[in-house]
Amino acid sequence: MTAGRKVLYEEVADRIGGMIDSGTYRPGDRIPSIRELSGQMRVSANTVMEAYALLENRGMIEARPQSGFYVRSTILEPEDRPAKREEGEGVAPSPVILDEVSLQVMRNVSNISLVPLGGSIPNSDLLPALKLSRMIASESRRQPLQSISYAPAKGIKRLRAQIAKRSISSGCPLSPDEIVITSGCIEAMTLALQAICRPGDTVAIGSPVYYTFLNFIQWLGLKVLEIPSTPKEGMSLEVLTYAIRQTPISACICIGNFNNPLGSLMPDEKKRELVRLLSRHDIPLIEDDVYGELSFGAVRPTALKSYDEKGMVLHCSSFSKTVAPGYRVGWIAPGRYYQKIKQLKTLFNIATATPTQMAVAEFLANGGYDHHLRTIRRVYARQVTQLRDSVGRYFPAGTRVSRPEGGFVLWVELPDRFDALKLYEMALAEGIGIAPGRIFTLGEKYGNCFRLNAAFWSEEIERAVKTLGGMAGGCFE
Amino acid sequence: MTAGRKVLYEEVADRIGGMIDSGTYRPGDRIPSIRELSGQMRVSANTVMEAYALLENRGMIEARPQSGFYVRSTILEPEDRPAKREEGEGVAPSPVILDEVSLQVMRNVSNISLVPLGGSIPNSDLLPALKLSRMIASESRRQPLQSISYAPAKGIKRLRAQIAKRSISSGCPLSPDEIVITSGCIEAMTLALQAICRPGDTVAIGSPVYYTFLNFIQWLGLKVLEIPSTPKEGMSLEVLTYAIRQTPISACICIGNFNNPLGSLMPDEKKRELVRLLSRHDIPLIEDDVYGELSFGAVRPTALKSYDEKGMVLHCSSFSKTVAPGYRVGWIAPGRYYQKIKQLKTLFNIATATPTQMAVAEFLANGGYDHHLRTIRRVYARQVTQLRDSVGRYFPAGTRVSRPEGGFVLWVELPDRFDALKLYEMALAEGIGIAPGRIFTLGEKYGNCFRLNAAFWSEEIERAVKTLGGMAGGCFE
Repeated sequence: MTAGRKVLYEEVADRIGGMIDSGTYRPGDRIPSIRELSGQMRVSANTVMEAYALLENRGMIEARPQSGFYVRSTILEPEDRPAKREEGEGVAPSPVILDEVSLQVMRNVSNISLVPLGGSIPNSDLLPALKLSRMIASESRRQPLQSISYAPAKGIKRLRAQIAKRSISSGCPLSPDEIVITSGCIEAMTLALQAICRPGDTVAIGSPVYYTFLNFIQWLGLKVLEIPSTPKEGMSLEVLTYAIRQTPISACICIGNFNNPLGSLMPDEKKRELVRLLSRHDIPLIEDDVYGELSFGAVRPTALKSYDEKGMVLHCSSFSKTVAPGYRVGWIAPGRYYQKIKQLKTLFNIATATPTQMAVAEFLANGGYDHHLRTIRRVYARQVTQLRDSVGRYFPAGTRVSRPEGGFVLWVELPDRFDALKLYEMALAEGIGIAPGRIFTLGEKYGNCFRLNAAFWSEEIERAVKTLGGMAGGCFE
Repeated sequence: MTAGRKVLYEEVADRIGGMIDSGTYRPGDRIPSIRELSGQMRVSANTVMEAYALLENRGMIEARPQSGFYVRSTILEPEDRPAKREEGEGVAPSPVILDEVSLQVMRNVSNISLVPLGGSIPNSDLLPALKLSRMIASESRRQPLQSISYAPAKGIKRLRAQIAKRSISSGCPLSPDEIVITSGCIEAMTLALQAICRPGDTVAIGSPVYYTFLNFIQWLGLKVLEIPSTPKEGMSLEVLTYAIRQTPISACICIGNFNNPLGSLMPDEKKRELVRLLSRHDIPLIEDDVYGELSFGAVRPTALKSYDEKGMVLHCSSFSKTVAPGYRVGWIAPGRYYQKIKQLKTLFNIATATPTQMAVAEFLANGGYDHHLRTIRRVYARQVTQLRDSVGRYFPAGTRVSRPEGGFVLWVELPDRFDALKLYEMALAEGIGIAPGRIFTLGEKYGNCFRLNAAFWSEEIERAVKTLGGMAGGCFE
């Protein structure tokens, strides 16, 4: 009987496996649920469960929480080694010179009239627009005079207290007095760079580099040292260590959690090591943690700031990816640079707008932020998989896609001869936005790569991916 | 009969004149109305009117619109010539080095726990807090998704259209597409300076200089050329012309209307000449027009921008003085620097917060902004006179006070041996804020001057002025 049962569930597994092999079920497709299949095949639920376990072991299907079983994507991840090194990379700081092509591409990437696979913008439909509108209304009416008056340069106390309260979950309990509210994370980071660096100084940063950083680093007259990074664990500490010995570095910028564009998540031990390495050499670390709250796993990863023992980590984040981009509410916990940052904030625009600070504070206190986060994490996790599957389905063999554990961007890598800029141009002509790899570096790398935004998902987007995949074949040199 | 009547109104005039001379009525006091006096003295209203006309001619009383007749302040205005020239002034650009005393004073000037005679902050009680709270509420609820989403870098269209519509009143009809919304006027001005100047460049600016400008000019690594100014007409074009021939100047900053701190109002002909002079030498002019709407007269003065023929005037303003400082909504019409300014705005903080832009746009469209402006102009006009009278009453002989026709700051000048920094320190100990002259220059000038804020008026403030006046005698060297 036992032998018979075995044969039975193996038979079930072979039947489904055959349908996958023949393309009836394609990567990313949902296969029948246990109940459905046991009904259709008139076998017990147990039998189906064992069959699916077997298929999982064979790597053909995967369970997705609260969703069912899916044909596992056969698409490969990029190899977990840095992109091939260029002559002098990680040693020679480079002045930021963005050519006209790159600038033009950067402008187009977030063009809202395109199918939104280009910019790393969050999906507004997932954001708590109605709740926030009610809260900005009630807070302004409750305290009309306060709401039209200047906030302190460091920001209103209630908001700083809420942020401090939440900071425990990222492993670094902050006090409200360590925080300065900014007009978004970008402002936090530009203030940080201006507090630390003088023109001509060098900033070390994981490569590929989020191109917005290149923009403001260029404007500030700084040089960039690109540190090779891997899609799993981020910046290479070996190269960074080597670079620190070779050349003076004034600051390091790092997106430790769900890096944009790589998706990498630096392991805790490596985070600790990075902070130690830099602080041993008195190099301040500017942390961008805007994706930290968007973990697909159960636990929010630690902030680099949580390993900071000398006040040398300037932790920057915002509510632009999770609550309201248009509110322009972000913050910085700048450690020993606190006074300088507060002074610069005053200098450039006095303070962040008051009503939006009040509304975000109220939302954090009484808006169910954690519940909201759980929802959008789930959606982004699903969409990242859907987009990944979709690329796997429509793109030429040899295409590799990152497999991030949080955030909402994917890094796509094709064979060397692939020209992502050409794909970008063809896509643009079809009204589809993508972010070609060359805008993520000052060097000659990533010409075969591009970044996709998974914040949105619809049939239109799937069609766009199909279109892209179809055009990709024509983009090889 | 005619002779008899003459004697009668002269008698009435002499009677009231005598009461003024003897101190029964003091400068700034209201004297009886025409109706009251004609009743009290049993003479015709016509007789009183003629008597008051005579006293007005003698310079003893003045009519104040919608308020009555007042004993004219005997306090002098500062002489209408620039403060005494220093060696090399107007010729030698100076790097901005703010000493610790100045920085400390600047921090204290706007300390909200002090009697608010120090900072040039508007009076929140005069601002339309309730109306704005209703409008930010209704706008956010009407368009929840738009309100949480990024605004374009240049700002939301409706707000730009409203600002453009109003620009006609300042003599320069702008199109919405010439305007970039900023987080207040300070941000507009720092963006302007960054678009135009590189570190080491020289900026010409009327002296005394609003100290906030010195702060950000210092940070940007620019040099300052202080151009002597008069309390009536502002910056000396003779000195500016001379300076342009002597030294390269990269930009000029000018508050043409109701200058802070002098109160000067540049006449139209001089404005035209200034713009022509600068544009002939290809020097961009950064205009700060935040006080333009606060004219005490019937007409809003022209903006410098209205004389701009070559796109060389960068017109900066905000709603911080008239609507809501905490909303951080300002704008810049940067002429030929439009693209650069928009790019810099994106670079530093992407865009200005959306809900506050929406609320201000709605207020401009449907909030009765003009009616509101008429109200606050009247209040500020009254308070400026009250504060001026009060200084005249309590300060030592020889004290001179500016007589601005708009805005809400007064510039007070005492004899040379007076030490305004000493008064500032004594005032601070009494919980009273004033802004001593030395923070308005990089040179050694204005040690005998200070600025007062007339945005607030109460018995407490009058007592504070009395206290200041009493202490002033002890501040002579």
